Amino acid sequence: MRISLIQMRVTESVERNLARAEELALSAPKPDVIMLPEMFCCPYSPDSFIKNAEPSGSAVTRALSRISKETGAWLIGGSMPEAADGRIFNTCFVFDPKGREVARHRKAHMFDIDVEGGQRFCESDVLSKGEGTTVFDTPWGRFGVCVCFDIRFPDFIRSMRGIDFLAVPAAFNMTTGPLHWELLFRARAVDEQIFTFGCAPARDEAGEYVSYGNSIAVSPWGRVIARAGAEETVLTIDADPEEISAVRRQIPVGAPRRRG
Amino acid sequence: MRISLIQMRVTESVERNLARAEELALSAPKPDVIMLPEMFCCPYSPDSFIKNAEPSGSAVTRALSRISKETGAWLIGGSMPEAADGRIFNTCFVFDPKGREVARHRKAHMFDIDVEGGQRFCESDVLSKGEGTTVFDTPWGRFGVCVCFDIRFPDFIRSMRGIDFLAVPAAFNMTTGPLHWELLFRARAVDEQIFTFGCAPARDEAGEYVSYGNSIAVSPWGRVIARAGAEETVLTIDADPEEISAVRRQIPVGAPRRRG
Repeated sequence: MRISLIQMRVTESVERNLARAEELALSAPKPDVIMLPEMFCCPYSPDSFIKNAEPSGSAVTRALSRISKETGAWLIGGSMPEAADGRIFNTCFVFDPKGREVARHRKAHMFDIDVEGGQRFCESDVLSKGEGTTVFDTPWGRFGVCVCFDIRFPDFIRSMRGIDFLAVPAAFNMTTGPLHWELLFRARAVDEQIFTFGCAPARDEAGEYVSYGNSIAVSPWGRVIARAGAEETVLTIDADPEEISAVRRQIPVGAPRRRG
Repeated sequence: MRISLIQMRVTESVERNLARAEELALSAPKPDVIMLPEMFCCPYSPDSFIKNAEPSGSAVTRALSRISKETGAWLIGGSMPEAADGRIFNTCFVFDPKGREVARHRKAHMFDIDVEGGQRFCESDVLSKGEGTTVFDTPWGRFGVCVCFDIRFPDFIRSMRGIDFLAVPAAFNMTTGPLHWELLFRARAVDEQIFTFGCAPARDEAGEYVSYGNSIAVSPWGRVIARAGAEETVLTIDADPEEISAVRRQIPVGAPRRRG
């Protein structure tokens, strides 16, 4: 299973971001799965969420559907401010290689933090939280998908029954990134004996919210198998699903939570 | 809250192990809490568990009670093969500074692993598993206590409602230690926003089961604040409970699982 994480630079222009996502996705080395970062289509700020919110079926999801068809890959479409029922959600749409929507995850845990001398942010000011976990099945196994802060909740991840891969569009910052980014992707990989993938926007020091970048892939053994730096890049990983069954056979912690 | 982790060398002689535990505990710099390693009183092997199993109230628990009185500290008594109801459990007894038993945790997840080219062990061959989580309250906050393999189960740890500290007598080995020891103590610290403490036997390369050692303390931010090497040592940590409330205030992930 080859996956490409598109650690793209996000600008003020939705149009330019969609074009860049498409360009980078088409440049990837024929991956089976492509993932974009959290809020890949607009800056990560409350004002931007309000200004750029749009319903499913508008420009952003139409572009995502097209990209999945053009690349022939499953597309985990990062996230976008989704307008629905008079509210705004931080939503990840997933498309199959034929451009059909197969899953939709609304971030279930709001990113409301206030670290002394560090990052402050309050998603709850403008966003509403979704409910429940989201999984979808592929020829290589079951994917769970969640957004950023959701990864801090081990019981939430555990309740995604029977997943083999966890895909997390995310945008940690220069406070929480160095503290917890790698740790959380490694922890969830070992807890659930799965591959974990995190895809973040490239770092823009001039931005209002500075993304840590460092898009990452971790094996079911908890080993970091690939990690980007701060710059715009496409990180491609070949993940062998056999590794999942090997870990589960050798350190059998998971029988109670499996699908079967 | 000052805690001393007694990373002692375990020998074939129960009597010698009890004497050494007492000697090292008395040498510690006036801690509030003392912790011993998993199976501190006998070698970590199925034969040894059968040979040395004894019921509560016998030599080992009497020695533990005496050590807590002598030191005036809370004593998390590592673990021992406890004989009860015709079975053997891997049990941690906890005593208050007056020598009274305040908690008893029977390891709830059996250590049955078979890593290719690495460690093989099957506790289930001779041990029975306990049920449920174990907590006890101290002047500094609530402790959860579990044994070794139990730490791999995030939902089990999460179900210890309202803990501030997690104490884990453990004996990882030369396969799982380098892979997962630090990761798991950091992961549980960040997931639950608590201090975590792991106390292991000193490494004995000549032993049948070679302990990784590396007794460890991690802050609620997920930072390793102290870590031993392989040798016999007493690792003492001053942990400030205020750090727990600071993390919970600054990254508020935990409201739903608190006691109040």
